[in-house]
Amino acid sequence: MPGTQLTKGGPLNVPHLCRTSTSQYPSAQNTKELQPLMANPVCETTAQKKQQPQGPERPNSRQRFKEKLMQWVSYIAGDMAVFGEWMKGQFILLQILDWVLRGAAQVMFVNNPLSGLIIFAGLILQNRWWALNGFVGTLFATVSALILGQNRGAIANGLYGYNGILVGLLMAVFSNAGDWYWWLLLPNIFMSMACPIVSSALASINSRWDLPVFTLPFNILVCLHMVATGHYNHHFPQVLFQPRKSMHNLTWSELEYSKLFCSIPVGIGQVYGCDNPWTGGIFMVALFISSPITFAHATIGSAVGMVSGLALAAPFQNIYFGLWGYNCVLACIAIGGMFYALTWQTHLLAVACAFFCAYLGSAIANVMSTFGLPACTWPFCLSALTFLLITTEIKNIHKLPLAKVTYPEKNLIYFWKMKKVERIDKQRKNQEKDVESQQKKEEIMAAMETKEHKRLDVCSVDVPQEETTQNGQDRNPEAIELNLTQL
Amino acid sequence: MPGTQLTKGGPLNVPHLCRTSTSQYPSAQNTKELQPLMANPVCETTAQKKQQPQGPERPNSRQRFKEKLMQWVSYIAGDMAVFGEWMKGQFILLQILDWVLRGAAQVMFVNNPLSGLIIFAGLILQNRWWALNGFVGTLFATVSALILGQNRGAIANGLYGYNGILVGLLMAVFSNAGDWYWWLLLPNIFMSMACPIVSSALASINSRWDLPVFTLPFNILVCLHMVATGHYNHHFPQVLFQPRKSMHNLTWSELEYSKLFCSIPVGIGQVYGCDNPWTGGIFMVALFISSPITFAHATIGSAVGMVSGLALAAPFQNIYFGLWGYNCVLACIAIGGMFYALTWQTHLLAVACAFFCAYLGSAIANVMSTFGLPACTWPFCLSALTFLLITTEIKNIHKLPLAKVTYPEKNLIYFWKMKKVERIDKQRKNQEKDVESQQKKEEIMAAMETKEHKRLDVCSVDVPQEETTQNGQDRNPEAIELNLTQL
Amino acid sequence: MPGTQLTKGGPLNVPHLCRTSTSQYPSAQNTKELQPLMANPVCETTAQKKQQPQGPERPNSRQRFKEKLMQWVSYIAGDMAVFGEWMKGQFILLQILDWVLRGAAQVMFVNNPLSGLIIFAGLILQNRWWALNGFVGTLFATVSALILGQNRGAIANGLYGYNGILVGLLMAVFSNAGDWYWWLLLPNIFMSMACPIVSSALASINSRWDLPVFTLPFNILVCLHMVATGHYNHHFPQVLFQPRKSMHNLTWSELEYSKLFCSIPVGIGQVYGCDNPWTGGIFMVALFISSPITFAHATIGSAVGMVSGLALAAPFQNIYFGLWGYNCVLACIAIGGMFYALTWQTHLLAVACAFFCAYLGSAIANVMSTFGLPACTWPFCLSALTFLLITTEIKNIHKLPLAKVTYPEKNLIYFWKMKKVERIDKQRKNQEKDVESQQKKEEIMAAMETKEHKRLDVCSVDVPQEETTQNGQDRNPEAIELNLTQL
Repeated sequence: MPGTQLTKGGPLNVPHLCRTSTSQYPSAQNTKELQPLMANPVCETTAQKKQQPQGPERPNSRQRFKEKLMQWVSYIAGDMAVFGEWMKGQFILLQILDWVLRGAAQVMFVNNPLSGLIIFAGLILQNRWWALNGFVGTLFATVSALILGQNRGAIANGLYGYNGILVGLLMAVFSNAGDWYWWLLLPNIFMSMACPIVSSALASINSRWDLPVFTLPFNILVCLHMVATGHYNHHFPQVLFQPRKSMHNLTWSELEYSKLFCSIPVGIGQVYGCDNPWTGGIFMVALFISSPITFAHATIGSAVGMVSGLALAAPFQNIYFGLWGYNCVLACIAIGGMFYALTWQTHLLAVACAFFCAYLGSAIANVMSTFGLPACTWPFCLSALTFLLITTEIKNIHKLPLAKVTYPEKNLIYFWKMKKVERIDKQRKNQEKDVESQQKKEEIMAAMETKEHKRLDVCSVDVPQEETTQNGQDRNPEAIELNLTQL
Repeated sequence: MPGTQLTKGGPLNVPHLCRTSTSQYPSAQNTKELQPLMANPVCETTAQKKQQPQGPERPNSRQRFKEKLMQWVSYIAGDMAVFGEWMKGQFILLQILDWVLRGAAQVMFVNNPLSGLIIFAGLILQNRWWALNGFVGTLFATVSALILGQNRGAIANGLYGYNGILVGLLMAVFSNAGDWYWWLLLPNIFMSMACPIVSSALASINSRWDLPVFTLPFNILVCLHMVATGHYNHHFPQVLFQPRKSMHNLTWSELEYSKLFCSIPVGIGQVYGCDNPWTGGIFMVALFISSPITFAHATIGSAVGMVSGLALAAPFQNIYFGLWGYNCVLACIAIGGMFYALTWQTHLLAVACAFFCAYLGSAIANVMSTFGLPACTWPFCLSALTFLLITTEIKNIHKLPLAKVTYPEKNLIYFWKMKKVERIDKQRKNQEKDVESQQKKEEIMAAMETKEHKRLDVCSVDVPQEETTQNGQDRNPEAIELNLTQL
Repeated sequence: MPGTQLTKGGPLNVPHLCRTSTSQYPSAQNTKELQPLMANPVCETTAQKKQQPQGPERPNSRQRFKEKLMQWVSYIAGDMAVFGEWMKGQFILLQILDWVLRGAAQVMFVNNPLSGLIIFAGLILQNRWWALNGFVGTLFATVSALILGQNRGAIANGLYGYNGILVGLLMAVFSNAGDWYWWLLLPNIFMSMACPIVSSALASINSRWDLPVFTLPFNILVCLHMVATGHYNHHFPQVLFQPRKSMHNLTWSELEYSKLFCSIPVGIGQVYGCDNPWTGGIFMVALFISSPITFAHATIGSAVGMVSGLALAAPFQNIYFGLWGYNCVLACIAIGGMFYALTWQTHLLAVACAFFCAYLGSAIANVMSTFGLPACTWPFCLSALTFLLITTEIKNIHKLPLAKVTYPEKNLIYFWKMKKVERIDKQRKNQEKDVESQQKKEEIMAAMETKEHKRLDVCSVDVPQEETTQNGQDRNPEAIELNLTQL
């Protein structure tokens, strides 16, 4: 996701372990007598770091197991930062594979190559030809971004790949020429390579409002390809989409609850254009590995979409097919913890956004069908952008700066830290204020006493009055009360 | 109107009367001997202010009547600022009612609860079910803005309500389910509550160019609802709009002038979706109360729309029905005195904008009908935004900063004051320049005289020439003439 | 083109020859003895300037001929700046004619009245009624810009005329009422006069990203007129455009290569809506006169469009008719040397943009046909804007600031100068660094020697080691090597 584009600024500055050892080489050679101690300097340093916190308290086996587990989880969960760092020293083709896998997962805002691998497994289960097209799309989008001199950190996070996989996949899904029509790879490659161009251009616009580009490049390019060729094309015919021209049947007794339940994973699968519930289930696993919050919001979003479909009297087939879910899934993830820090207010906002997105989805699907087009993920993009543009005076709805966006859990920790710092600042200020008012009180009391003495001497009452008119508004009421009582 | 959003910054800073007395309380208590003079300090201050200008010249009964009248007019005309201030101390439900009424009038850029009340009366005359929906829409939009933590001053000016009333009204107008179909209130409430979200998001974008959001949220949300459900929906069917597919009859002899005349108030009524000429007339009264300039431009706009319809060979029924008028009404008000200070140039610009808007209205109506949608107020929004984005070197076309926009009369006074200040500044600068040039002249003459003396002594002519080549360009021609004559 | 809008800031500051002589008048009169030398001061100055470079080297006849030729070329090529300067002193109607001619050529980014004249000749060859409408459009757009108080320099460069000529021409081309339907001049004048308004408004938005408005005002206004009236209008009927509803025939054996070749000039002609290949050829001459780079990219663009049409299985008639070419022509010119400095990278980018534009052209044509509209130059505008919004780390893709854009050759010279300055700066910095490192080396060597002496005295080795640990990372490896060898 574009959000994490600049985040890598941090990790990139942290010197990579292997490189650090290289740069230490001259000094190491220079200090020969120290070498025995640094036989394996890299591991040593890592070991030292681990030992230090363990030093004072001796852990038992259970604690050690828990620690080990947490460490393993930290290796595969989140954005797999450690793995990403390690990858930087590897062969370029391996690196590109990492970027492609991250790109595949970034569709769901997940920056995790393992999730990407699982997602590809799900795609292969659905349709191998689609999976191939998706892979080609991601690959060429990433390569094109490299050629176009885009930010290397963003490429490494898969931010130029996720539009590519969607372009590749959906062009295969919506092609009317059948599977394994190899000519399709030509426009697929062309459009994938155009992805970074459109991404970069849109980012120039959206960055003015600190907004990500989401899947807008995919929407633009797939719609462009589909409407440029159309259903009646000799080379690249498209599936026929037509506007609704008459009332459809809607018998509530025919509603099947099992299918309705299945529509939740199917809705998640439809993000990648897949209607197989198992594929959707696999995608859910991929989400859960990286971020449980993302997983939860994806599920909620899919459910909200299904309910909206029923509320707006949509044909049951569309609901079962997950067409009401996938946009809500993405919108709910984006608002619920990804670009806003997760609080109960933003959680409600995410649910509201999912409902809004479902409504918008129906609208856009109807509009697009006039041109023989599917809705793609336009509804998600537009609704999420709308909800990200809101300005509010509620402090718990905190939009993270795009450079700080990583994944919901880390975002939440960042938000908590920020709040803590603010609270401490506030407390300090309050304390200072208290001290100040205390000082003021004392000063006034001292002044009173002096005046009292003077009054006793001169027997005049106008001295305190004069002062009141001079700075009456600025003063503390308590001080004034004191003033009065003193008089 | 969003324009007045920040205007309240001023009034809000002016301490509310009741609050002022509270804050003066301690000092008042402190200075007991002064109390008799300040028995009713608030009224006293107000009275003093009034007496001061009246002091020197003793008014006769006619003047007094005129003054009284002006005072009463100032209470109900304009934005009823005094009433608004008074309202701030009242019970919250009463306040919300004030905001709802202001919201109802803000559709026409009128920030006046009395106008709002009259408009509601007009709506009830038209159709009670529509009026109910409009009320529900305004109410929920306002409440939603409160929940979402939007700017309280903007809410109090009805800036979050006017989209709500339009959403509520037009959803009822375009519903094909007939009046009193109570289920309609559900999407009505949902869409009304989405108004502040869309408003806030659009304001984030438009504020970059210091532009208001106009009725864009209404346009977006009503179109969204209508196209999401459509004519063939089981729950919320919409009226059928279809693109023109053949030539319509157009016999100029059939043109009825009485209906054509009626189309002017009907055009104003159509801003709220009402085709009853009496309702339109009532709306005109509501406009006149608050701002005669607004009223005049509304009438001109409606007439321009009607003429444009005839010029572009529109079916007469559409013209009679006010469909050519309502956008022009709004566009003409917006440009003529509301967001530009009213001068004859901006008046002409407003008329030009109304013509442009009528053209655009026809275009948008045709485009939207492809999707089964009405034109809503898209033409007004787009044309007014275009005309507000113009940059020009003409000084009399002065776009008011959004924070200074109130109502045309007040805007005009603000503009005049600004111009006066500028004129005085210019005069001062000119005077300074004159003084400087006078000084320069005298200096040169003094120098000349000295040189003359020298020349008489040395009999050489190259001294003045030298000077001419040194700073010939910078000097005043008058000074040079003097120079020459002196020589 | 809007790009050159601010460029004139330069030339405008250069005092116009005639005016300079006037301002020199008083001093000339003052210094009577110098007058004989300044009989014709203007020519003198010009002559001096020419003589100075010629002074030292005596040119032979061939060199002199070449020089003369270059001078003549400089008078009619590029933006004819000298002619433009001379025009400023002429009668206003003559000036407006200059502006109108420049406006006619600015459609192709050419700021040259001679090219404009040739283009008008081409238009007359095509259709005299169209040419008349084009002239009326340019004239009224320019006059309207004057009335609206737009920047005089921009008007003088034809930046307010090029949308006018397109509006006038295309309204005549797409009118279904036949040639010499004089009523058409009314909407023509109205729309032409609206051009500067829309231009100014769009410029307010696009300037935030330092982007030109291209032909967006034309696109907006012609589409507005066409869709507002439509095919079934009594006053201003439009040509019927309809979406493709079935498969067209496509027999590759029927492809005619001669027509395909002709489609290249026809594609260039279609920028002005002309299908006559001779007209296209005349336009190519007009381009070549002003800027060969523009001419080359126009030809490449047209060819790319033709190839794209074949690749996407377009009906041959459309390709022959130049419908695939004209957008690519404009896009290729804009990216190839006009708004980017021409390098081989931007040349490739221009070709890529042309392909993208062709794809987009097909898409937009299909979408617009739903509303009964042609594609106009929307595809060019959108694709060129997209490619101008790209941000990249490649230094040879240099987007010129809009204020510096003139014509490709001059842009290139500007870019080279800029690069040269940068290179010199870099060299200087490197030299400074070298000097610094040299100094450091010497310092270290001096220190070493001192230490060597000390070591001989004290026989201890820990002194240099200490230093290594202190600032080992910051130091030059060479210095360290020296350090080691010294030890």
